[in-house]
Amino acid sequence: MQDSIFTKIIKGEIPSHKVYEDEKTLAFMDIHPITEGHVLVIPKVQVEFVWDLDDEYYHAVMETSKKVAIRLREVSGKPYVYERIVGTDVPHAHVQLMPFTDTSEVHRPQDLASEPDHEALASLAEKLRF
Amino acid sequence: MQDSIFTKIIKGEIPSHKVYEDEKTLAFMDIHPITEGHVLVIPKVQVEFVWDLDDEYYHAVMETSKKVAIRLREVSGKPYVYERIVGTDVPHAHVQLMPFTDTSEVHRPQDLASEPDHEALASLAEKLRF
Repeated sequence: MQDSIFTKIIKGEIPSHKVYEDEKTLAFMDIHPITEGHVLVIPKVQVEFVWDLDDEYYHAVMETSKKVAIRLREVSGKPYVYERIVGTDVPHAHVQLMPFTDTSEVHRPQDLASEPDHEALASLAEKLRF
Repeated sequence: MQDSIFTKIIKGEIPSHKVYEDEKTLAFMDIHPITEGHVLVIPKVQVEFVWDLDDEYYHAVMETSKKVAIRLREVSGKPYVYERIVGTDVPHAHVQLMPFTDTSEVHRPQDLASEPDHEALASLAEKLRF
């Protein structure tokens, strides 16, 4: 199996703005954020869909997602954190988390063509890191 | 605290098309489905946001969500199951699950004005029930 872009991030072959890491999971900034503070949580095992993770990795991803969501709410000062699992973009299970105030902020397509603002992402990751 | 519409469903004061139930969680058909097979998973405790559930109820909701997602994929024959947590509509933690083939099916607003098709929902719930 070819390494996914996320496996390359886990291995450190592709840089990322890390927010949280433990034995089974990694959380890092989405470089094309839908809202400021858009974070991805992934398992350290390459399985295509969240639903196909074994219970151990599934619960680890969900536990990290909860921690990150609470941290996002705290740091962003926004009242809500949107979570979504789609699974059609990158063939490596991932949970997306986005702080927001109004649902119109999250119900819009991701701008994949824009140049990532790595300086802003690094600064935000530093504030969020725990 | 006033009972939420979901607490009334748990208590049986409002009818619902149940798919799965255990000690801590309930899964039932959304009466305004975004895709056919749109299911809501809720904890049997009235807490406003998923992120504020204690670990026991949080993991119970996530475990039921995984079971329902796998069941939805199996019964619907669709390759993907979208999950989202928003938290601005009903003040009772809930996870939304929707089987889909193309993302355009899930990225659209919910039609809350339409009359629920209870016959179709009951029939689908019966197929999904486990």
